[in-house]
Amino acid sequence: MIVEVIAVGTELLFGQIINTNTATIGAALAERGLDAHFQQTVGDNLERIASSISTALDRADAVILTGGIGPTQDDITREAVCAATGLPMVFNDEYAERLREWWAGRGKTMPKSNLRQAYHPEGAELMMNPRGTAPGLAISHGGKLIFCVPGVPAEMEFLLANDVIPRLVAASGEEKVIVSRLIRTWGRSESDVAETLDDLFEGANPSIAFLASASEIKVRITAKADSTVEALTLIEPVETEVRSRLGNTVFGIDDETIERVLLRLLSDLGYTIGTAESMTGGLVAARLTDLPGSSAVVRGGLVAYTNELKQRLLGVEDISSVVDAATAVEMATGAQSLLDVDVAVAVTGSAGPDPLEKPPGTVVIAVATPEDARAKELRYSGDRERIRAYGTTAALQLARLALIGSWWKH
Amino acid sequence: MIVEVIAVGTELLFGQIINTNTATIGAALAERGLDAHFQQTVGDNLERIASSISTALDRADAVILTGGIGPTQDDITREAVCAATGLPMVFNDEYAERLREWWAGRGKTMPKSNLRQAYHPEGAELMMNPRGTAPGLAISHGGKLIFCVPGVPAEMEFLLANDVIPRLVAASGEEKVIVSRLIRTWGRSESDVAETLDDLFEGANPSIAFLASASEIKVRITAKADSTVEALTLIEPVETEVRSRLGNTVFGIDDETIERVLLRLLSDLGYTIGTAESMTGGLVAARLTDLPGSSAVVRGGLVAYTNELKQRLLGVEDISSVVDAATAVEMATGAQSLLDVDVAVAVTGSAGPDPLEKPPGTVVIAVATPEDARAKELRYSGDRERIRAYGTTAALQLARLALIGSWWKH
Repeated sequence: MIVEVIAVGTELLFGQIINTNTATIGAALAERGLDAHFQQTVGDNLERIASSISTALDRADAVILTGGIGPTQDDITREAVCAATGLPMVFNDEYAERLREWWAGRGKTMPKSNLRQAYHPEGAELMMNPRGTAPGLAISHGGKLIFCVPGVPAEMEFLLANDVIPRLVAASGEEKVIVSRLIRTWGRSESDVAETLDDLFEGANPSIAFLASASEIKVRITAKADSTVEALTLIEPVETEVRSRLGNTVFGIDDETIERVLLRLLSDLGYTIGTAESMTGGLVAARLTDLPGSSAVVRGGLVAYTNELKQRLLGVEDISSVVDAATAVEMATGAQSLLDVDVAVAVTGSAGPDPLEKPPGTVVIAVATPEDARAKELRYSGDRERIRAYGTTAALQLARLALIGSWWKH
Repeated sequence: MIVEVIAVGTELLFGQIINTNTATIGAALAERGLDAHFQQTVGDNLERIASSISTALDRADAVILTGGIGPTQDDITREAVCAATGLPMVFNDEYAERLREWWAGRGKTMPKSNLRQAYHPEGAELMMNPRGTAPGLAISHGGKLIFCVPGVPAEMEFLLANDVIPRLVAASGEEKVIVSRLIRTWGRSESDVAETLDDLFEGANPSIAFLASASEIKVRITAKADSTVEALTLIEPVETEVRSRLGNTVFGIDDETIERVLLRLLSDLGYTIGTAESMTGGLVAARLTDLPGSSAVVRGGLVAYTNELKQRLLGVEDISSVVDAATAVEMATGAQSLLDVDVAVAVTGSAGPDPLEKPPGTVVIAVATPEDARAKELRYSGDRERIRAYGTTAALQLARLALIGSWWKH
């Protein structure tokens, strides 16, 4: 069953609010094995909303409209459904009475405009919405289903979970489930990952896709099956194969960020961590302290932006050049002493736009553990913000690799 | 000129990532007086992307496609543009060479699949993207414009601002110039700012709008006129009035961030700055070092996440309670000594989710200058990330207010 979501609201078109509803609905559809080919966003214009509905009815089995069913003049989704389907608008006395009671129960007189919510296309079933006064609508028309739900996320989510999805699953006549597993990697380029997994693309179920965000490459394995267990059984051998090919560039799955993985690793090893940062100016420490409970392993960090601080507080001996492995290692071992930590990560480099000893994009990272200290020079392209962000991620990733005894080889 | 955005990616349809690109593009269109009627989202399917493009070309003057132009097999936006327009695909030798050089410059061999990025519909102009290897494409076809930009937000944003919007504005042939002035304020609520400026809303040209982002309230004054000079002349008296009513909660205009304003102020005063952070874990130092040239005034910072570091390195005497004004002041004056700086900013607090001495959201900030040191306790709501972000901004803002001799009074 193919479902198309239409988000209604001029404020969405002009980015005044970010549309999270379509993502929420999309995830709920995927979870129940319902398919989606398109989504639309349309402004508060009768003719254009109606045209969006007609387009969606032509190519999908069901349409979910979110937004435009409130009490104000620019809430015209109900009218647009009538225009697109030819259904007449009817007034629901029973619901009007209910609205009056709702307001009376709050000791208020209902604003007249609220009666708009008692109108609906003929034949619509009302879906009760305890989080607001606009009822959702479920309409069956010409063999297709049309749902209208509010744009307010909490109200939409309630009706989605309690009414829309159950009705769609029942109508679809199939109980297929879609399960995805995200394999998170760092240290290879997107195209390198793609080539390494090239032949695995052939399978349709599970299917494989890529997501690149910042310097991280995610591989998504998606399976469709009769049950979650069966879907996971389909995913498992593919996941094993992907992991074996990508080796220890895989650092986590699903919602495991590198911060989370690194903190757990440190906690398992009984180690504390600290930082010594020049180029990244505090970003590594900030990422490490991002998670609740990080204070169990993160002691602190020094931002040694000037060479004088590198020398005086971290014990860097030769400050005639500071974008090199020797300085990074001295910063890391210096931080171990200064902060009294087991593991220290140090970052120095040239973030640009002007070169600092080496071309902008040069990042030197050192990790000192109780066993040893090593440094690695990397090169990134882009502007200052990107170079600092990529350098920060690299510092966290290299700390992980140092701790699992597998210093990055690429 | 009507512009339609098409976001490409199956991961968007199934809510694995939230589509922020269309909101970013929508806001940029609105700012330049460009119109939008629809947006579409479509999965990684050749026929369906092509159909979305055809639909958009039928009803809009320009189409912006975001996503699907990377190096992997499921990046098929280029192919879909050819299918929708009938343009043949051509191979760009020059860009292929450039890609090879990019990889060679990193001491690597280019994976073969990366050559996909050297193909494009005939007649497309490449828009150079310094934040990645996929060039944007600008295509003029049948009197309409088609733009392809990456899906990675940072890459998309660069091409949008530097290439797409200027080309759209030029093509729109709009004679009138729209000029906006952003007045940036901090320290008052949105409703307080709105009430203070209430009567100024009546004017249509210039018009006034609000943007609230993080803890900053921006007042946007927009004028439409025959020339930039004329528009600025319309804006000037309104700006003067707004500034006079909002007083020193106004810290900058347009792209003057608090970091930029604070660094300039320090530079003018001949002062250096350093930080002592607990709750914000390095975020204040990271913001201060965000700008090129910050090393002229920023010496460094200490992230003292544990109380032992607060005591040993910053000289905090009583660590039996650390979320209070006394500790914050000691941290700030301690940082002055440790880092040898004129001005130090210190942040301590309870970021949550569990309370630390005080309820989550409690932020205590101290600023030490060569004259004195003061602390201020603030309270924010929201999750850990929001509280840390708001605390970071507050630290920078309070440093500015301390330096201009106007400690925040609200």
